[in-house]
Amino acid sequence: MRLSRYLLPTLKENPADAQIASHRLMLRAGLIRQEAAGIYSWLPAGLRVLRKIEAIVRDEMNRAGALELLMPTLQLADLWRESGRYDAYGPEMLRIKDRHERELLYGPTNEDMITAIFRNNVKSYRALPMNLYHVQWKFRDEQRPRFGVMRGREFLMKDAYSFDLDEAAARRSYQRMFVAYLRTFARMGIRAIPMRAETGPIGGDLSHEFLVLAQTGESAVYCDRAVLDLPIPAADTDYGGDLSGIVRQWTTPYAATEDVHDIERFEREVPAEQRVQTRGIEVGQVFYFGTKYSAPMKALVTTPEGEERPIHGGSYGIGVSRLLGAIIEASHDEAGIVWPDAVAPFNVGIVNLDPSDATIDQVCADLVTGLQAHGLDALHDDTDERAGVKFARMDLIGLPWQIVVGKRGLSRGVVELKRRAGGERLELSPADALAYVLTPAA
Amino acid sequence: MRLSRYLLPTLKENPADAQIASHRLMLRAGLIRQEAAGIYSWLPAGLRVLRKIEAIVRDEMNRAGALELLMPTLQLADLWRESGRYDAYGPEMLRIKDRHERELLYGPTNEDMITAIFRNNVKSYRALPMNLYHVQWKFRDEQRPRFGVMRGREFLMKDAYSFDLDEAAARRSYQRMFVAYLRTFARMGIRAIPMRAETGPIGGDLSHEFLVLAQTGESAVYCDRAVLDLPIPAADTDYGGDLSGIVRQWTTPYAATEDVHDIERFEREVPAEQRVQTRGIEVGQVFYFGTKYSAPMKALVTTPEGEERPIHGGSYGIGVSRLLGAIIEASHDEAGIVWPDAVAPFNVGIVNLDPSDATIDQVCADLVTGLQAHGLDALHDDTDERAGVKFARMDLIGLPWQIVVGKRGLSRGVVELKRRAGGERLELSPADALAYVLTPAA
Repeated sequence: MRLSRYLLPTLKENPADAQIASHRLMLRAGLIRQEAAGIYSWLPAGLRVLRKIEAIVRDEMNRAGALELLMPTLQLADLWRESGRYDAYGPEMLRIKDRHERELLYGPTNEDMITAIFRNNVKSYRALPMNLYHVQWKFRDEQRPRFGVMRGREFLMKDAYSFDLDEAAARRSYQRMFVAYLRTFARMGIRAIPMRAETGPIGGDLSHEFLVLAQTGESAVYCDRAVLDLPIPAADTDYGGDLSGIVRQWTTPYAATEDVHDIERFEREVPAEQRVQTRGIEVGQVFYFGTKYSAPMKALVTTPEGEERPIHGGSYGIGVSRLLGAIIEASHDEAGIVWPDAVAPFNVGIVNLDPSDATIDQVCADLVTGLQAHGLDALHDDTDERAGVKFARMDLIGLPWQIVVGKRGLSRGVVELKRRAGGERLELSPADALAYVLTPAA
Repeated sequence: MRLSRYLLPTLKENPADAQIASHRLMLRAGLIRQEAAGIYSWLPAGLRVLRKIEAIVRDEMNRAGALELLMPTLQLADLWRESGRYDAYGPEMLRIKDRHERELLYGPTNEDMITAIFRNNVKSYRALPMNLYHVQWKFRDEQRPRFGVMRGREFLMKDAYSFDLDEAAARRSYQRMFVAYLRTFARMGIRAIPMRAETGPIGGDLSHEFLVLAQTGESAVYCDRAVLDLPIPAADTDYGGDLSGIVRQWTTPYAATEDVHDIERFEREVPAEQRVQTRGIEVGQVFYFGTKYSAPMKALVTTPEGEERPIHGGSYGIGVSRLLGAIIEASHDEAGIVWPDAVAPFNVGIVNLDPSDATIDQVCADLVTGLQAHGLDALHDDTDERAGVKFARMDLIGLPWQIVVGKRGLSRGVVELKRRAGGERLELSPADALAYVLTPAA
């Protein structure tokens, strides 16, 4: 993609009303634009990141055996009356009346609707376990939307819902999601720590939040340093097998948010030099809530013995749009964003120091073609701005690799390859620079 | 995918309230579920079709040089006041108040918002031509939602917006979208005919609707038979070049919807034996509206001479969710849907006549693996239902190919391959059946 044909409205100055780094950087790097309080447009580069995050989430959900469907954004109020949540939900629910004065709402979550879908279509234990998920826009009418996509009102969430015959099977479904979440966040280049959590308006008696550690996080968190170095489950993990060992390994070291923090237990169980006290950003939460929805809504299945029984359910959320903010909070520096490879809007930025020179333009274009042939995307800065402006912009938008192509280098047959994360620079021929970027270990 | 682990709630009987074939078949084939009047969930198989259609639309938009972004579903009422459309739009606009009594609306279209995005970020003619598009859920509060996804309220639309310095350039942008639309619909296995149309609430003085011909269509259409056989532009069409010849070729033969039908011209220009009078389903519409939005909203760019001038705009919609209905209307028979290959939820259905037989199950599983290795998806019916039920269901859901695997055939080393569209059957070895399905000309 040539930058001269792209829409990447970067800002030199910090926007006045953005209080945290990710919000500032998402605005400055031309990823989003505010349309109303807590409501954003995703500009082309921001949408590319959003789609990459969504693809990783989807891939790991499918690997864990979940089935994707898609529920609408608007729901009938009556459905929420049936589950008993309509009046309980409070002012965060955006309530709407249509032209016939029928009461609708913009879904903040989907336990009620998925329970209705399940109830009408599944009748026997033989279809279980079942896990249904979707990736859809939600709305929560926050009293005070802020921090950009971190506390927006219209946001993209992946929410999965499991259905099982009894509590033991439901806990196995919970474990599958727990393991899938460990893999999902690791693939994005971040480490999210599962912590015991309260269940809030979703209900139930078992819940873990997954938090990315960052000083700007919204919650204080307390954990044993040991949890920071645990191994991520492999891609060939058998989701049909027993996952309780992995879950036990991750839940044994102390890790809790301030809401459920037990200071006595923390000090008793964790040696002083192992205690970590920092802040975290929630990027996912998993719940087991038993028959909270299935009993009032009569989502029943027949058991092998021919009885009817309400299913045991759980729900599993990931804040897809919020993850952009969380990743940036965890990975940026003074100069801008430092995107992990897997979610960067483009893999490589090519800085063309003299776009009016046909030879240089050709070298840049060939690099783009060579990268594309190997499935990597490149953004080719072919604008006629000053070199300093181009370097600063490339650092700001945070692509993992930069290749600088100029007359002086090319006279010696080299371009400059820079790794955004560590700042290392190498002078290489264009072909060697390409090979270097394509080397997986690089 | 094993059907025993899938959610495909097919119905034997026609739902009482579904009046047209596509609505009946989408409900019967387990593609959608109604959640409220004109609001649907997309069950797993329906979502697969929706995503395939969306991918073709996106691919052809990108090929034509458009840039993808994503605008939110909710918009500020004030934005629509600025363009002058808020009061004009009428009761189809879903108007919402948030907890602070701020006026929002669920976007029925995005000319106003995209003009604001453009205005804030693009200042010079050098960035032009620019075409920005998104694929997002829209809401139109229809007085009487019906016909399933054909006239729903919450629907998925691709809408693109072009920005040019003057009318001549804007007409070239219009032509690029016109050609992209011809390719887009053809790739889905349907023929959509461009017809002169009125502009309605979008405004402007030039518009074409693209209509799929079907007896159940909502508009009467009149055309010259010659337009039905015109060649579709090739994949390597140069979108930077002159496309007026293609557009002229497609707009010269008479073709018009009832709204703009000129019976005198029709009878004067088209020989009697060439006259086609039928009905059509609108699946896309393109508009050139000049400065209708840019002038009141002050979306100005500087010209090469340094003057400021409002840009000339167009907008280009495709009804992504509606296309499922339109394709089914154009391609079904007594037994069910007949999906074109490119948009089928799965490419192949494998009918396992005896899932309790380990050999048969293995042959079926190997066929699934073999197809997957070549990028084709298969649905393996491993349920313990009767053969007749399985055959009827496979015809109903309309996968392009069926492979029937049973004990009697396997004793002779063969399976039965059936093409859904024509009903032809062949007895082949499993390996030959696989090769046959993979042969592009087949």
